[in-house]
Amino acid sequence: MNIDMIRAAAQRLEGHARKTPLLSSPFLDEIAGRRLFVKPECLQHTGSFKFRGGWSALSAMDEATRQKGVLAFSSGNHAQGVAFAAQQHGVPAVIIMPADAPQLKIDNTRALGAEVVLYDRAKESREEIGARLEAERGLTLVKPYDEPQVIAGQGTCGLEIAQQAADLGISEAEVVVCCGGGGLTSGIALALEADAPGLKVRPAEPEGFDDVKRSLASGQIETNPAMSGNICDAILTPAAGDLTFPIMHRLCGPGIAVSEDECLHAMALAFLRLKLVVEPGGAAAMAAALFHGDELEGDTVIATISGGNVDPEMFTRALQSYAR
Amino acid sequence: MNIDMIRAAAQRLEGHARKTPLLSSPFLDEIAGRRLFVKPECLQHTGSFKFRGGWSALSAMDEATRQKGVLAFSSGNHAQGVAFAAQQHGVPAVIIMPADAPQLKIDNTRALGAEVVLYDRAKESREEIGARLEAERGLTLVKPYDEPQVIAGQGTCGLEIAQQAADLGISEAEVVVCCGGGGLTSGIALALEADAPGLKVRPAEPEGFDDVKRSLASGQIETNPAMSGNICDAILTPAAGDLTFPIMHRLCGPGIAVSEDECLHAMALAFLRLKLVVEPGGAAAMAAALFHGDELEGDTVIATISGGNVDPEMFTRALQSYAR
Repeated sequence: MNIDMIRAAAQRLEGHARKTPLLSSPFLDEIAGRRLFVKPECLQHTGSFKFRGGWSALSAMDEATRQKGVLAFSSGNHAQGVAFAAQQHGVPAVIIMPADAPQLKIDNTRALGAEVVLYDRAKESREEIGARLEAERGLTLVKPYDEPQVIAGQGTCGLEIAQQAADLGISEAEVVVCCGGGGLTSGIALALEADAPGLKVRPAEPEGFDDVKRSLASGQIETNPAMSGNICDAILTPAAGDLTFPIMHRLCGPGIAVSEDECLHAMALAFLRLKLVVEPGGAAAMAAALFHGDELEGDTVIATISGGNVDPEMFTRALQSYAR
Repeated sequence: MNIDMIRAAAQRLEGHARKTPLLSSPFLDEIAGRRLFVKPECLQHTGSFKFRGGWSALSAMDEATRQKGVLAFSSGNHAQGVAFAAQQHGVPAVIIMPADAPQLKIDNTRALGAEVVLYDRAKESREEIGARLEAERGLTLVKPYDEPQVIAGQGTCGLEIAQQAADLGISEAEVVVCCGGGGLTSGIALALEADAPGLKVRPAEPEGFDDVKRSLASGQIETNPAMSGNICDAILTPAAGDLTFPIMHRLCGPGIAVSEDECLHAMALAFLRLKLVVEPGGAAAMAAALFHGDELEGDTVIATISGGNVDPEMFTRALQSYAR
């Protein structure tokens, strides 16, 4: 896993993934107590950065392998990113989702051209179903984060941050990244190490699901006690990956844990001041930048917004609580 | 009023106004029945395209005039665009607003560095107050649309559309523009005439406030019967301007009138599929592209989103009605 893989992914993504802008607002600078720039990956295809990793993985396969199709386990952003990348490549995608997933997510994934295979969480193993489909149909599994070409794809977001910061004359800043399994965080960290060494990555996680923060402190991979029970569903993962953690350990500053209310507040501020739709997990880094300034250093912070796939009910809750 | 003024404005805006992207979604293409690209000026500074015109007007003044400060009548997007452009230039801005304007809008305009002068709509004339301030303090009035340098600033949005369409290989398309007084519409039309003559502008307006549609049909400036009574407040104007109408008459195809419900529906789709916060008037062009396809020609339509300054209550109404 190295910078050359990220640069190669950037070439493959050229003209396919969106280069998202860096946005700011004087109102947010005032709350943050320093200059705050936001990298809105909610504006990426399928509404999250996951399209970058999906496209990178698909485009890196040899033609014969790719033609047989790809497989992913997900009911969320990774599923949509892989499904759309496969559709754009003209190859099959099979997404394995729990039968009790929201109908809207099932419908959306199908509408992006994927075959959705539903399983019963209580009685079936998604891994067994996946292994059978891999064997029978020659599908290739695209893992959500612990996969070199996926990390390389997410790292292209970091190349853009490095370039955009340079264009603004920014050579030193903290870059706060919404962190689940660490694919985006480690990819951005590698890109910045090469292209903007004065920009340091800080992972942001939900309180109670701050395995990466604890892992960075202890020096080994720690786990979360649960996989649910927090509104930041997009970044709830059991633990960082075997590929992503060593990169984060080498390159990242201490993690920052944010509360659910801080995420809802950040969502409301993104609505008011940036005109962006952000999902709870996608608001974690912005929440850290806005409300944990005492854990940050320097006069400039850049916060990623990792996604915007939020239900109307949750979005309305954020507005009713904090858009005043 | 000509293309050279727009190109000169683009040079003055370089590094100050945002170049907004062109966004799309396969879900929206399907509803529109053709390829739909969206130009989201809600992502512009202060949440609307008005910052372009404000910056253009301020930056075109001679230094002595500018230093004395500027004046605007507005409680909406134009006020914020002028206030922020003045603040960034380091010169005073006075915004004359009705005393019964929402407190949030007054607070926001003040927070952007402007002095807000309130007047009593029933007893006072804002024009008299403005004339007095112009005389006493040497302020220069920045009109919202019927002003050459303002039109030139809004036209920079059209230069970007021309370039972005060329990058996508699009040489023919209808470009639907949210239309109030016609500053954005005429500016974009002039830019496209020069740089992308296969792209034709179509003004979009609220039903019952479709003065430009009627004016284009009759060949003379028609007026609206009222200035309120529609949720598309940002684009309710008494009539097109003496400068903007002749340009629209020469260059635009027929106007399209959209209903309030179509605007709310477009807002919900922008939330779901583009992760953008759009105000009702800002959604008029997108509503025309999505729901008035029979009034459009060709396989590609580009719709401007003119702004995103919407109250949480109105946004929630759009989601509750149409985000399913």
